[in-house]
Amino acid sequence: MNPMNETIHNQLSHRTIREFKDQKIPEEVFRQLIEVARRTATSTGMQASSVIRVTDQNIKNQIAEICHQEYVAKAPELLIFLVDQYRNYRIAGEKNFMAENARDMDRFFSAFTDACVMAQNLVNAAESLGLGTVYLGSILNESQRLCELLKLPELTFPVIGLGVGYPDQNLQLKPRMDMRLRVFENAYTVFDSYLDEISEYDEDMRTYYDLRETNQRTDSFSDQVVGRFKQSILKRRDILNSIRRQGFDLGVKE
Amino acid sequence: MNPMNETIHNQLSHRTIREFKDQKIPEEVFRQLIEVARRTATSTGMQASSVIRVTDQNIKNQIAEICHQEYVAKAPELLIFLVDQYRNYRIAGEKNFMAENARDMDRFFSAFTDACVMAQNLVNAAESLGLGTVYLGSILNESQRLCELLKLPELTFPVIGLGVGYPDQNLQLKPRMDMRLRVFENAYTVFDSYLDEISEYDEDMRTYYDLRETNQRTDSFSDQVVGRFKQSILKRRDILNSIRRQGFDLGVKE
Repeated sequence: MNPMNETIHNQLSHRTIREFKDQKIPEEVFRQLIEVARRTATSTGMQASSVIRVTDQNIKNQIAEICHQEYVAKAPELLIFLVDQYRNYRIAGEKNFMAENARDMDRFFSAFTDACVMAQNLVNAAESLGLGTVYLGSILNESQRLCELLKLPELTFPVIGLGVGYPDQNLQLKPRMDMRLRVFENAYTVFDSYLDEISEYDEDMRTYYDLRETNQRTDSFSDQVVGRFKQSILKRRDILNSIRRQGFDLGVKE
Repeated sequence: MNPMNETIHNQLSHRTIREFKDQKIPEEVFRQLIEVARRTATSTGMQASSVIRVTDQNIKNQIAEICHQEYVAKAPELLIFLVDQYRNYRIAGEKNFMAENARDMDRFFSAFTDACVMAQNLVNAAESLGLGTVYLGSILNESQRLCELLKLPELTFPVIGLGVGYPDQNLQLKPRMDMRLRVFENAYTVFDSYLDEISEYDEDMRTYYDLRETNQRTDSFSDQVVGRFKQSILKRRDILNSIRRQGFDLGVKE
């Protein structure tokens, strides 16, 4: 039998929560979430990620606009995780070392990774305390506008948003594809027919959408994949140009 | 008082573990870690990340070479997390939709985020079961070589490596900078003097290195920052060109 404990029980019960009770998160709870974030693994100890805690309703509204999602404006806590090479660039500068390497894209990616793992560590702490969370990848719909809105200096960049609060909805667990399609041994496995491989999962998703209590519809995973690829937001695709505008050197051979 | 439970207790005790007992992780434990990975939040439900489980000692040795870290070859489990837009590109293709948007960089970043949060979710599960972990950002020292080694098809890319096993070392908790330097309200806060702001942290780090049981040295955070910026690996900086070679369209204006 697979081993079980409270942490894993909560992880296996993960659902995205978009509706929150009108109830603030107590300050000592928030402080503990930030303390967990602080203790997260970080590349070479550099701690090159930061967080903007959005409390100003006007800014929340504008972020909801960027996300095209009204519920974002209502999240009791709204956090924006950042790549942050600016702080260490300044520290080095004050030690008389002009760290132009801070602009390199490998450092951007390691800070990006730091920000993501910090966000997920915080999510696990939040869920362990009965809070619900929603990741907001949609903050990157207009990354340049978000940089301006949050007054981000050079060498910083938004990575992911997170809404946190006490859940006001009770959702069924959404089916996920079998991990035999996602975990491979020693080398990537290419399958002959992906539609064959996911046929059972497609069926599970159809049943899930058909039977669920709210927002019933006919849908399958493979149809969703096509639908998602059809949606393309011009400003989103332009993300590397936004990153360059924030002072990073893409290092791309022309 | 800040709220506490087993999950948060483990998170606050996080240390990077590089020395593991010569003891395999039981298959049911590994399966449970993968089940947790499966339930991780994923952007728009697309599950666009995958994992290579490296069990072949020859491949482990080559990855340790890429990482410039011998201990990598000895990790009982070695996992490489991937951006994976290939699977969904194939699914769409079999439904007669040529999803050239799969090449867009915003999709690369959302898959990159998926891979990172999956890795951290697995880390939290592993640590809750008494396992230790080490993130390996150094797999990206030579990303093109790693792509070839793991036979990664187009539209996939390595994100982060992870070693997992039963800890064979007992480390002190490493000091981290105060979160007032990393969490800001509504807008990014630029400080006048960063060296002033981190002076106490620099002192904590000096004490930590001075008092710790193994590998004592004189060091401070600000010195480490300068030292890290001085190290630059040419192939690492070239990461966007590797990403382009894997079929992604950087969308950069020349």
